[in-house]
Amino acid sequence: MKPRLSIGLIGHGFMGRAHSHALHDLEFFFDPGVAVVRKTLCGIGDDVAGTAARYGWQGWTNSWEEVIADPEIDAVSICTPGDAHREIAVAAAQAGKHVLCEKPLANSLAEALDMYEAARSAAVKHVVNFNYRKLPAVALARRFLQQGRLGEVRFFRATYFQDWALSPDVPFLWRFDKAKAGAGSMADNGSHIIDLARWLVGEFAEVAGTAEITVKERRSVEDGAIRPVTTDDTAAFLARFENGAIGLFATNRTSAGHKNALVFEVTGARGALVFDLERLNELQVYFYDEAPERQGFRTIMVTDPSHPYISRWWPPGHVIGWEHGFVHQYYEFVKAIAEDATPSPTFYDGMKAQAVLEAIETAWRGKRWAPVPDTEA
Amino acid sequence: MKPRLSIGLIGHGFMGRAHSHALHDLEFFFDPGVAVVRKTLCGIGDDVAGTAARYGWQGWTNSWEEVIADPEIDAVSICTPGDAHREIAVAAAQAGKHVLCEKPLANSLAEALDMYEAARSAAVKHVVNFNYRKLPAVALARRFLQQGRLGEVRFFRATYFQDWALSPDVPFLWRFDKAKAGAGSMADNGSHIIDLARWLVGEFAEVAGTAEITVKERRSVEDGAIRPVTTDDTAAFLARFENGAIGLFATNRTSAGHKNALVFEVTGARGALVFDLERLNELQVYFYDEAPERQGFRTIMVTDPSHPYISRWWPPGHVIGWEHGFVHQYYEFVKAIAEDATPSPTFYDGMKAQAVLEAIETAWRGKRWAPVPDTEA
Amino acid sequence: MKPRLSIGLIGHGFMGRAHSHALHDLEFFFDPGVAVVRKTLCGIGDDVAGTAARYGWQGWTNSWEEVIADPEIDAVSICTPGDAHREIAVAAAQAGKHVLCEKPLANSLAEALDMYEAARSAAVKHVVNFNYRKLPAVALARRFLQQGRLGEVRFFRATYFQDWALSPDVPFLWRFDKAKAGAGSMADNGSHIIDLARWLVGEFAEVAGTAEITVKERRSVEDGAIRPVTTDDTAAFLARFENGAIGLFATNRTSAGHKNALVFEVTGARGALVFDLERLNELQVYFYDEAPERQGFRTIMVTDPSHPYISRWWPPGHVIGWEHGFVHQYYEFVKAIAEDATPSPTFYDGMKAQAVLEAIETAWRGKRWAPVPDTEA
Amino acid sequence: MKPRLSIGLIGHGFMGRAHSHALHDLEFFFDPGVAVVRKTLCGIGDDVAGTAARYGWQGWTNSWEEVIADPEIDAVSICTPGDAHREIAVAAAQAGKHVLCEKPLANSLAEALDMYEAARSAAVKHVVNFNYRKLPAVALARRFLQQGRLGEVRFFRATYFQDWALSPDVPFLWRFDKAKAGAGSMADNGSHIIDLARWLVGEFAEVAGTAEITVKERRSVEDGAIRPVTTDDTAAFLARFENGAIGLFATNRTSAGHKNALVFEVTGARGALVFDLERLNELQVYFYDEAPERQGFRTIMVTDPSHPYISRWWPPGHVIGWEHGFVHQYYEFVKAIAEDATPSPTFYDGMKAQAVLEAIETAWRGKRWAPVPDTEA
Repeated sequence: MKPRLSIGLIGHGFMGRAHSHALHDLEFFFDPGVAVVRKTLCGIGDDVAGTAARYGWQGWTNSWEEVIADPEIDAVSICTPGDAHREIAVAAAQAGKHVLCEKPLANSLAEALDMYEAARSAAVKHVVNFNYRKLPAVALARRFLQQGRLGEVRFFRATYFQDWALSPDVPFLWRFDKAKAGAGSMADNGSHIIDLARWLVGEFAEVAGTAEITVKERRSVEDGAIRPVTTDDTAAFLARFENGAIGLFATNRTSAGHKNALVFEVTGARGALVFDLERLNELQVYFYDEAPERQGFRTIMVTDPSHPYISRWWPPGHVIGWEHGFVHQYYEFVKAIAEDATPSPTFYDGMKAQAVLEAIETAWRGKRWAPVPDTEA
Repeated sequence: MKPRLSIGLIGHGFMGRAHSHALHDLEFFFDPGVAVVRKTLCGIGDDVAGTAARYGWQGWTNSWEEVIADPEIDAVSICTPGDAHREIAVAAAQAGKHVLCEKPLANSLAEALDMYEAARSAAVKHVVNFNYRKLPAVALARRFLQQGRLGEVRFFRATYFQDWALSPDVPFLWRFDKAKAGAGSMADNGSHIIDLARWLVGEFAEVAGTAEITVKERRSVEDGAIRPVTTDDTAAFLARFENGAIGLFATNRTSAGHKNALVFEVTGARGALVFDLERLNELQVYFYDEAPERQGFRTIMVTDPSHPYISRWWPPGHVIGWEHGFVHQYYEFVKAIAEDATPSPTFYDGMKAQAVLEAIETAWRGKRWAPVPDTEA
Repeated sequence: MKPRLSIGLIGHGFMGRAHSHALHDLEFFFDPGVAVVRKTLCGIGDDVAGTAARYGWQGWTNSWEEVIADPEIDAVSICTPGDAHREIAVAAAQAGKHVLCEKPLANSLAEALDMYEAARSAAVKHVVNFNYRKLPAVALARRFLQQGRLGEVRFFRATYFQDWALSPDVPFLWRFDKAKAGAGSMADNGSHIIDLARWLVGEFAEVAGTAEITVKERRSVEDGAIRPVTTDDTAAFLARFENGAIGLFATNRTSAGHKNALVFEVTGARGALVFDLERLNELQVYFYDEAPERQGFRTIMVTDPSHPYISRWWPPGHVIGWEHGFVHQYYEFVKAIAEDATPSPTFYDGMKAQAVLEAIETAWRGKRWAPVPDTEA
Repeated sequence: MKPRLSIGLIGHGFMGRAHSHALHDLEFFFDPGVAVVRKTLCGIGDDVAGTAARYGWQGWTNSWEEVIADPEIDAVSICTPGDAHREIAVAAAQAGKHVLCEKPLANSLAEALDMYEAARSAAVKHVVNFNYRKLPAVALARRFLQQGRLGEVRFFRATYFQDWALSPDVPFLWRFDKAKAGAGSMADNGSHIIDLARWLVGEFAEVAGTAEITVKERRSVEDGAIRPVTTDDTAAFLARFENGAIGLFATNRTSAGHKNALVFEVTGARGALVFDLERLNELQVYFYDEAPERQGFRTIMVTDPSHPYISRWWPPGHVIGWEHGFVHQYYEFVKAIAEDATPSPTFYDGMKAQAVLEAIETAWRGKRWAPVPDTEA
């Protein structure tokens, strides 16, 4: 009989659904070494009870404090808007719960540092859900880089384009409110590509950037009032990495035609890698060392059993979807708890991404390059 | 409290796993109107009990007759090799069970006719799992055709290429044994593209074809013996449809570089559609009526809530995978039972595909065009 | 001072223009060893004189016999409709002129045999303008095959789709008249893919096929009369090659969305190649021998100096166009004359393609597989 | 009899060859209203006489002053390294010659202003060869923008990646010497994308950037000495346009896998456009106003007679190459002279691009955003 691990999930919106499903599918495909119990779903608003039932939770509540206070709960997942992350995560860690938190980790570097410190002090396992690291094609990119097949990385570009906010008719949401969301596209989408850059290239040294709120006000569905949008929908930034590589980044929620287009390219001294989230089963790779006659970007279908995570899924060419990255992330979080190992990425990574975001905003406002704050001091 | 529908699943290999998962995910995303109970998993060989437990089945057995005999079981799914389909399906229907059967429906037209007749006589719901009809992009193709946006269909091409059998080191499997599998690539892969052709273009009138066994013998893992391969790995056929359209088809399990490449193009008098299973979230469409200056194949990301099935999944651009088609197929099967409606595709469709397969083999052996047998007589 | 080679060109339509331009560009980029003189352009109809002047011809005529009779002319190019090929080519060869003839070589196998025999007897150089062999990417495909990198070829598919004849408003042209054109899409487009198949795979053994005239009548621009279309616009055929490989072919002039889409795939025991004429600077290649982790179709930009013909053009990535194949074909024709070598492809190749076309029509009409006629007897 | 226009071309390297060919092909396809005479080719170094003969020039010289002094020469083209542009162009204009100059127009804004002023004062026609404006797909992009089909432009991204300088074994060339070339990738490749941005979006307001010399020294082929590379091979910059749009740019000569990959995307309030120079016959367009069900990026084959320039070339789908843009540029230059009209782009455009380059360098060195210098004062 496997030991049990009980989880409480705070937040029952889009992300709460994705997390619930990851837990639902986890043991169908993977063996994390413990039996996971979906104990409590916490949400505010419509039909938390019904949602909990549908998604396989044993119970539900409107109070996150109740989740933290529950001695039977071993681990807590946080899927709330960003302004609540710190309070919940710190409380959870102090209560000895392992914590998995949605990205961006917090609404400021200070908050992120608090969270990291709390988790570290409590010696609980902590994970920030930069789920795209856990896609097979992205993990394969990392593998190739670590094998040295691309040579030293010199250039990185990443764009994350969506167009869900293009229409002025999209109503006012918490994501348009800086107080709730911390920042806009630069944080929501940008934190993903910052994290991937850190993982694939290394630490950021300094940045420059700009951002814009294209659609400046929107109507609230709650009260029909017109509210000012306070988060950017378009942003761009340049970076220098500590290893000297140059980085080029943009995020956009009003980029017509792009639905979930996170595209990155890693350029090394001996080759290059291109990934596109809308074709997430594929990785394009160029090996410069081949004979010129035969050189070309190859499109690897990352569905071979030799590829990361794939042996647990389907035969070659039977593609997986976006949601599978969440399963992998939970697998690694739960397994790390079961085996008392260190999962990845941790709050440290979430905090480092926050430091970059903070530098971008400093640079943007000051109209100059800004160093990434030293968080090791 | 919803009524319950209990299911027995016969076969616990690759397809048994895909069906189990479809049932596992079904009510997380869809509401078929009843509560589905995974009652019994039936399998032969390794660890049926463990598999049943892992995949959420209440019980297990080695005897398919036991499943049929169980008065609590309402519906039966058949995922065995093809040589067992008829016996099980007929017995299930006669026992009043609704039946969902893997494709190809049978190993011969005669068997398929028996199955269709049995299901019809018993007035149970019957479905053949041509799961690719249930992918959003394929369903969207059908929608455009039914809207008349492509005009009269005049040409259809479809290829289904894989390369899992390319290496002579792949051991002898039941799929290489004509007695078990009925046919090879022509039936296994071909039945999918025949079904899609029927759905998107119309009934076949006559066919011509050829086929080959490229790798002629393989070693058995069981006893180490070299066995002759008796099923084709490569096949090609031409068709005329009843509406006069020309069809071009090929299937291949030794087509280097293609993992699960079901590609089709529908060419009409006013436009064209292209689908590729390895990029199953996309549909390419060309509308000939547009101004020449602006004409071009467009790539639709079939992830908008307005697209078939998508509103139950994730936001635009958050792509789904191969397995999701099975969820949709089960949703429609179970819903049809719940509402006493007719699901799609039925054993009739499975039988019609079998008639085409039979004509192809007749044509191939006779080295001439052969009419598709009249199955309405 | 280089020796001179004087050319007469018969036909001043689309092909006459393409040939004239090939000669115009030839010595700008290549050195064929002789100085080419564009002596006489022969045409019937509008403004032959003006066309000749514009395209750099020293003189012009309405009489092809005059071209043949001109003792100063060393070589003749034939760009007329197919029904005039035989008479002109035979006369030219008998007059000791080297001959380059447009494809398909003739309107029947008998005519093609006459032409081949006449050219061979006269010991002149003879070329059929299967210009796509001369594109760098296609020549690279051939190189890889000859290097053995793809292994034994087992499967070949080729489609050549255009849509210029889709609209019923396209007027009646000589290409719609079987008496003039010999055949329709099957010959015009089909001869190209038959030739590529022979070049890349080997000789055809037998074929089966079907064809259709979708738009059955069209209005003549000359007299406004409605005329019946007597050439197919859609055709499909299967083949067996002498080496056992299976071939799958289709041609279409009413295939909405495709402008000049000659696509082929060569599948061998160790890899595959894909080419698309609309992206003619690219070749996709899959090498099956690589580690599964790194396998993928690579897209080679065939613009490297190491690639066929490219060193004479531009730097890598500076793409060339459709017309450049004609320059290469003329380069090889003229160089073969200059060096008394054998050019490629010759009337033998044109004749062999005709034999395949004849077999396809036999098969189509007889509704059975037909052997390719033995032309060696 | 058409009037004649005599041209002198200064520079006989890669660009001299491309210009010569443009003139060679010009009247084969287009009618600029005058008969162009290739009078004198001027070059320094190897075999100017042979080159001139091969490329159809009547005469040759080693002295550019001689070209300027020739009273029979009406127009001068400048294809030298950038450090000679100003002197030659100013002299040519002052001598009353029309001038076409390679890009970037000069090695500094001051030089560019001199050139623009000289050409304007002399009232000669002046063109800077931003040849990519003249590709049909790029001209179509501009047409769609001017038709208002994309709405107000809000975001622009462009990258121009090559990898010819990736290998440290590439010898020292004038392009690696800041004194000769002015700048590196930022100027050579960057000036193209800056010009396209100005043409498609509008004037730049301010910029920020960074650049790097990755390969820091190279061996000279002349004397075998190791020389320091003083021009960047990698650069990235951000921009704000006067209309508020955000721009994202990068150039790279060491970007493994990219041969001539100028890619841009224009994002407007109602759609988007994507162009890739390696597939220069294609334009991708997204119209946001369509029904969500049918929205998608369409790939237009820009080979229809309704597309810019195409009616002079080949039928649909018969693709053109990189060199054709030069033909179009010369067509417009010569036609403007013939008709006393204003060609495009002019030295004004070359000068404005230089102003942006200067601002980028200021920004890069100052590590802050820098306004584009006011050149209208």
